[in-house]
Amino acid sequence: MAEPLRVGMIGLGTVGSGVAEILCGHAERTSGRAGREVVIRRIAIRDPSKPRECEVPDAKVTTDWREVVVADDVDVVLELIGGLSPAEEIVETALKAGKPVVTANKALLCERGDRLFPLARELGTTISFEAAVAGGCPIIAAIGQAMTGNQITSLAAIVNGTSNFILTKMLDEDTSYEDAVSEAQACGYAEADPSMDVKGIDAAQKLGLLTQLAFGRRITPDQFPVQGIDELSLMDLKFADELGYAIKLLATAKLVDGKLEMHTQPTLIRHHEPLAQVSGPYNMIELTGDAVGKTWFSAMGAGQMATASAVVADLIDVAVGRAATNFPLLNLTDQPDAFPLQAVEDIERRYYFRFNVEDRPHVIADIADILGRAEISLASVIQKEVQEPDEDSPYPIVPLVFMTHRTTEGRLRSAAKGLDQLDCVRGSWLCLPIGE
Amino acid sequence: MAEPLRVGMIGLGTVGSGVAEILCGHAERTSGRAGREVVIRRIAIRDPSKPRECEVPDAKVTTDWREVVVADDVDVVLELIGGLSPAEEIVETALKAGKPVVTANKALLCERGDRLFPLARELGTTISFEAAVAGGCPIIAAIGQAMTGNQITSLAAIVNGTSNFILTKMLDEDTSYEDAVSEAQACGYAEADPSMDVKGIDAAQKLGLLTQLAFGRRITPDQFPVQGIDELSLMDLKFADELGYAIKLLATAKLVDGKLEMHTQPTLIRHHEPLAQVSGPYNMIELTGDAVGKTWFSAMGAGQMATASAVVADLIDVAVGRAATNFPLLNLTDQPDAFPLQAVEDIERRYYFRFNVEDRPHVIADIADILGRAEISLASVIQKEVQEPDEDSPYPIVPLVFMTHRTTEGRLRSAAKGLDQLDCVRGSWLCLPIGE
Repeated sequence: MAEPLRVGMIGLGTVGSGVAEILCGHAERTSGRAGREVVIRRIAIRDPSKPRECEVPDAKVTTDWREVVVADDVDVVLELIGGLSPAEEIVETALKAGKPVVTANKALLCERGDRLFPLARELGTTISFEAAVAGGCPIIAAIGQAMTGNQITSLAAIVNGTSNFILTKMLDEDTSYEDAVSEAQACGYAEADPSMDVKGIDAAQKLGLLTQLAFGRRITPDQFPVQGIDELSLMDLKFADELGYAIKLLATAKLVDGKLEMHTQPTLIRHHEPLAQVSGPYNMIELTGDAVGKTWFSAMGAGQMATASAVVADLIDVAVGRAATNFPLLNLTDQPDAFPLQAVEDIERRYYFRFNVEDRPHVIADIADILGRAEISLASVIQKEVQEPDEDSPYPIVPLVFMTHRTTEGRLRSAAKGLDQLDCVRGSWLCLPIGE
Repeated sequence: MAEPLRVGMIGLGTVGSGVAEILCGHAERTSGRAGREVVIRRIAIRDPSKPRECEVPDAKVTTDWREVVVADDVDVVLELIGGLSPAEEIVETALKAGKPVVTANKALLCERGDRLFPLARELGTTISFEAAVAGGCPIIAAIGQAMTGNQITSLAAIVNGTSNFILTKMLDEDTSYEDAVSEAQACGYAEADPSMDVKGIDAAQKLGLLTQLAFGRRITPDQFPVQGIDELSLMDLKFADELGYAIKLLATAKLVDGKLEMHTQPTLIRHHEPLAQVSGPYNMIELTGDAVGKTWFSAMGAGQMATASAVVADLIDVAVGRAATNFPLLNLTDQPDAFPLQAVEDIERRYYFRFNVEDRPHVIADIADILGRAEISLASVIQKEVQEPDEDSPYPIVPLVFMTHRTTEGRLRSAAKGLDQLDCVRGSWLCLPIGE
């Protein structure tokens, strides 16, 4: 058997402990699959006094990550601390030492991939990041290997387990958004500050990475519409359900007439679609290829062992030489000529509008007038008799829902100004796209 | 760029034409992903007078497969004729010439894999067979690469698109089994003789292959229960639906108390399970790992372009060296000590029974008596008032459905003899397992 692969691990938190559990607890199984032992030789931690879930025998523990990264007895660096700093420096130092890197850090790769990926290639080493997107779904491998006979034409993904957990909880248990967030925090699915998840940023970053691989374009979240689930209320989930749709935080990149259309938004998806049926903290990626047609990949998107499973698969890929074969072939450079990005204003979809309005004459006419002037054509209107008394208004407040025909994001934005100024609309109104 | 990979193709039928369409129609895209050109250099066909869907410029066409396999200008042999003979000889000849083989032939690999896989390894070459199981789902890659951090604990799969198409058609369109089979034939999903598909043999062969990879055991379909969909009638699908289940031809291999339990049978699956929602000619594999938990892979299981997509991915794997890395690491030898096969008699499940009985006193008692003596405990009984007059009987014939508590296949078999002899039961009765 070949020499062992010696891992230097930066960070021994939840995922790190899971990786240690697999590598130490199933050493024989792992070495069978890697053709050699895979051992954790050094670990860098921030706080040595913190109690740890796991024991890693034979590993030297330090608080200085540099010691680990440059050590002669470390063959591969496993970056598990997340965030940009010092993760970027850690990865860069490892690459410059000629060492392959395995990471689960999608924020880093989304923000700095344009620097780190070419650097790794120049230096003849590799970055493996299956764990960075959709944990248990081998989606990086699917795009890089299984789909090589295809032009991917569409990618529609539920890649934020926290948001999906919250949306599922709200509808299944008739719970408010706020209570569902608390529940997600109690279950360990949401951070104390859940903004990255509920505002769609995490999903948009993952979409950026997948788009790079699938379409050869580097597009960052500031270039396409990103909308979180924090604007939704339970009544929206219920209206959508009645209308035959689930609402999911959907990250989409697809080719429309040769242009690349991207958005990450809560989206109405017909009940019978596989994406509509993904519940709780699960992820699903629907990948369409011009030869294979539609394919689906689903698994837990995060959590200790699902992420650890992906990390260990990446380490084994390094051990057997798959990483060295695959990494140079991934579509990691931006090719602007390949598929120009569709201008946001020209993105064309159907939309769901929900307003809380005063229940008095001419309200529907006022709203419909603004939409009509923006050339947005209505497909249906639903006014419900659910009444919420409002102390500031002489009229009861009722929800009003419109479904539109196909229209553009540009027309929507031009209508938005008018809608914001309407007296009869109370509080903020909501607009969500309808999936196709 | 490296030298081109020169393909020798045996068979230019539906799948072969699809492969040619991708390789010739998207040559630049393919060479970008393979790091070298992938060209079809020689083709062996049986009947040169048959009109072909596609043109393959620069390929020499012959009726002698040997010419193709041993040619100096062929680097990889693509076997697409199916069946055992002469496919076995073709693959063997190619391997002996030191050439890697790509094949979509699951029957061959299921029946002769125990000879061909070790032969390829001895000769230092490879067999790639992603297209042999579940066409567009990269399940061989998932087991061999993505799941390497796991012990797979369960594999439950819809891998026969023909059967799934027929079952979907029957329930959706209120159609008899016979009419649905005709429809499947008209759509090109079923052969003129559909036995391999509807009797569960095709699915059982695929299960054998997947079990080898996932559990390291070579188990052939004669060693586990195999039941087809040809015994089902529309009323069974409707009863199951009412009870909250879909019926799917499910191929299952899972670890139960350290033993490997296997079966390929139409199975009742609760509506909310992802496997229950797979419709038409699609496939789905639910793979459970001890770290990652449940994962799902779904796509078209067969058909020209889905299979061609998998074949081209395999050719590119050969071109870039992934096949050479992956093949030696696949779990392809039988390790009987790893997981002993559960004896068929000891397989324990819940069951659905459907009888057509004479509507007269003591019928339920007669059947329940036989089941009770076999220690099969009933969970529920449904007698419907749907009446079918029968000229041979003074009584109307009605369907009678039992759902049992957990019991063993052994008890079931001992009850079967008694049930077969009951006068009140008309025609054959049906027993299906209920999934968990």
